[in-house]
Amino acid sequence: MSTTFKPLADRVLIEPAAAEQVTASGIIIPDTAKEKPLKGTVIAVGPGKKDEPMEVKVNNIVIYGQYSGTEIKIDGKDYLIMKQGDIYGIVG
Amino acid sequence: MSTTFKPLADRVLIEPAAAEQVTASGIIIPDTAKEKPLKGTVIAVGPGKKDEPMEVKVNNIVIYGQYSGTEIKIDGKDYLIMKQGDIYGIVG
Amino acid sequence: MSTTFKPLADRVLIEPAAAEQVTASGIIIPDTAKEKPLKGTVIAVGPGKKDEPMEVKVNNIVIYGQYSGTEIKIDGKDYLIMKQGDIYGIVG
Amino acid sequence: MSTTFKPLADRVLIEPAAAEQVTASGIIIPDTAKEKPLKGTVIAVGPGKKDEPMEVKVNNIVIYGQYSGTEIKIDGKDYLIMKQGDIYGIVG
Amino acid sequence: MSTTFKPLADRVLIEPAAAEQVTASGIIIPDTAKEKPLKGTVIAVGPGKKDEPMEVKVNNIVIYGQYSGTEIKIDGKDYLIMKQGDIYGIVG
Amino acid sequence: MSTTFKPLADRVLIEPAAAEQVTASGIIIPDTAKEKPLKGTVIAVGPGKKDEPMEVKVNNIVIYGQYSGTEIKIDGKDYLIMKQGDIYGIVG
Amino acid sequence: MSTTFKPLADRVLIEPAAAEQVTASGIIIPDTAKEKPLKGTVIAVGPGKKDEPMEVKVNNIVIYGQYSGTEIKIDGKDYLIMKQGDIYGIVG
Repeated sequence: MSTTFKPLADRVLIEPAAAEQVTASGIIIPDTAKEKPLKGTVIAVGPGKKDEPMEVKVNNIVIYGQYSGTEIKIDGKDYLIMKQGDIYGIVG
Repeated sequence: MSTTFKPLADRVLIEPAAAEQVTASGIIIPDTAKEKPLKGTVIAVGPGKKDEPMEVKVNNIVIYGQYSGTEIKIDGKDYLIMKQGDIYGIVG
Repeated sequence: MSTTFKPLADRVLIEPAAAEQVTASGIIIPDTAKEKPLKGTVIAVGPGKKDEPMEVKVNNIVIYGQYSGTEIKIDGKDYLIMKQGDIYGIVG
Repeated sequence: MSTTFKPLADRVLIEPAAAEQVTASGIIIPDTAKEKPLKGTVIAVGPGKKDEPMEVKVNNIVIYGQYSGTEIKIDGKDYLIMKQGDIYGIVG
Repeated sequence: MSTTFKPLADRVLIEPAAAEQVTASGIIIPDTAKEKPLKGTVIAVGPGKKDEPMEVKVNNIVIYGQYSGTEIKIDGKDYLIMKQGDIYGIVG
Repeated sequence: MSTTFKPLADRVLIEPAAAEQVTASGIIIPDTAKEKPLKGTVIAVGPGKKDEPMEVKVNNIVIYGQYSGTEIKIDGKDYLIMKQGDIYGIVG
Repeated sequence: MSTTFKPLADRVLIEPAAAEQVTASGIIIPDTAKEKPLKGTVIAVGPGKKDEPMEVKVNNIVIYGQYSGTEIKIDGKDYLIMKQGDIYGIVG
């Protein structure tokens, strides 16, 4: 990403995983889930807030809710910007 | 679980008990309950939050509300990710 | 109760009083009440929260709202799990 | 009241004034009021909360909103249990 | 007022100004206002709350919202009991 | 204004600018705006609150939302009383 | 901008980017996004609040939600006034 993007506060910029990569990583979203969690890679992390220190780091693979975040396109590529509180956890 | 999953903040990863194990453990969900509590095993625990220290530990058997958490599949197995505040208590 | 149950945070496990014991204890629920308070015995108490120290103790007889808590069956017996804030007071 | 009742937190047990006593005490509820305040005697007081110290004392005559509190019958007599925040003030 | 009334917390007892006195005091409520502010005299003031020190004093002439407070009749006279936060300001 | 008005807490008394003065001041409200901001002069300022120190001063020209505040007439003149948090900024 | 505008608290004055400049800057808004983020230049910044220190600076290029802020016209030019919390991040 030649254009840099610095999230504010407790926001995180995520590159969503392509659909075919999901199975390979060992995380499969159940068909019957009411809300399907999704997977992505952390690209940029805000400085955090007073009561919300940042737990995720750049390059972490994270799982987040299906309806979390806002789509944003930088240099022609799709990203999501969301608050850390919308991220469920980090895949090791 | 070969793939590791590290919950953020006050979130907990739970492996739901299979339906046939529920009776054996001494916890039976009443048919007439408006909301049926369910049972599961804690697989992973977040670091907690400033005002929410973690009380549950890995391998605890916990009871939680029927509609709590989000389904997630890791290495082909079903789990639930939920906030500790959605867990009612620990079965000894 | 051979199976132990440890409530989390400010939750309380209550054994509801049987309907015929209500009159004997001196507490009668009025027929006309919009919400009928109920009576029960405290079986187990959570550790409390930072701003919510526990005031009820095991074996306290407590009064709580008709719609408070969630039903749970342990070793074939009915209990209620609720937050201490849903309990009105202790009968001496 | 032979049965004692100890309210939790910032709750107050009130014996509502009978309708005919209302005029004698100098407090008359207007017919046109959208919400009619009512009068009663404080019977028992909880220990208060961190940010809610108790201002009312046993035997205080208090005025409270028409829809405040929950009815409770102890030893055959009607009481109301409500939070101190639902009480408007003390009649001297 | 022979009967005294001590408001709790951040509540204020107000004697509403009669309709004909409103013009004389220099405050006229516009006909077109969505909510018409009203004027009254402070009769009694609560002790305040931790984050709400009392700014109004007995005998202050205050302006408050049309729908603020609850009507209360003491010794046959109409008063309003409201929280200080519902008062817009003091007329000098 | 011969009658003085002292706003409580974080409230501000504003004299709205007449419609014809708006253009002269360099601030023009767009016709297409969903909510039209308006301009006025600060006449009186409350003492502020614990977490809301006052930033506006008497005689500041301020911009505020179209639906902010409550109309009040003092000595026959129209004013608005609103919380400082409803003011967008100060025109220099 | 000959007329100066000083935002209050945690508010930010933004000059929205013209539609044709969006592509040139490397940020493209996806057609399919539920909410389309927009881009603009920070013109003025408030002093911040106790729990909301200002992270954006004058001349920062920022991304914000499609429905954020209020339109305001100063010296005939269109601006947006919004809270810093409505800004997603800074483009480098």
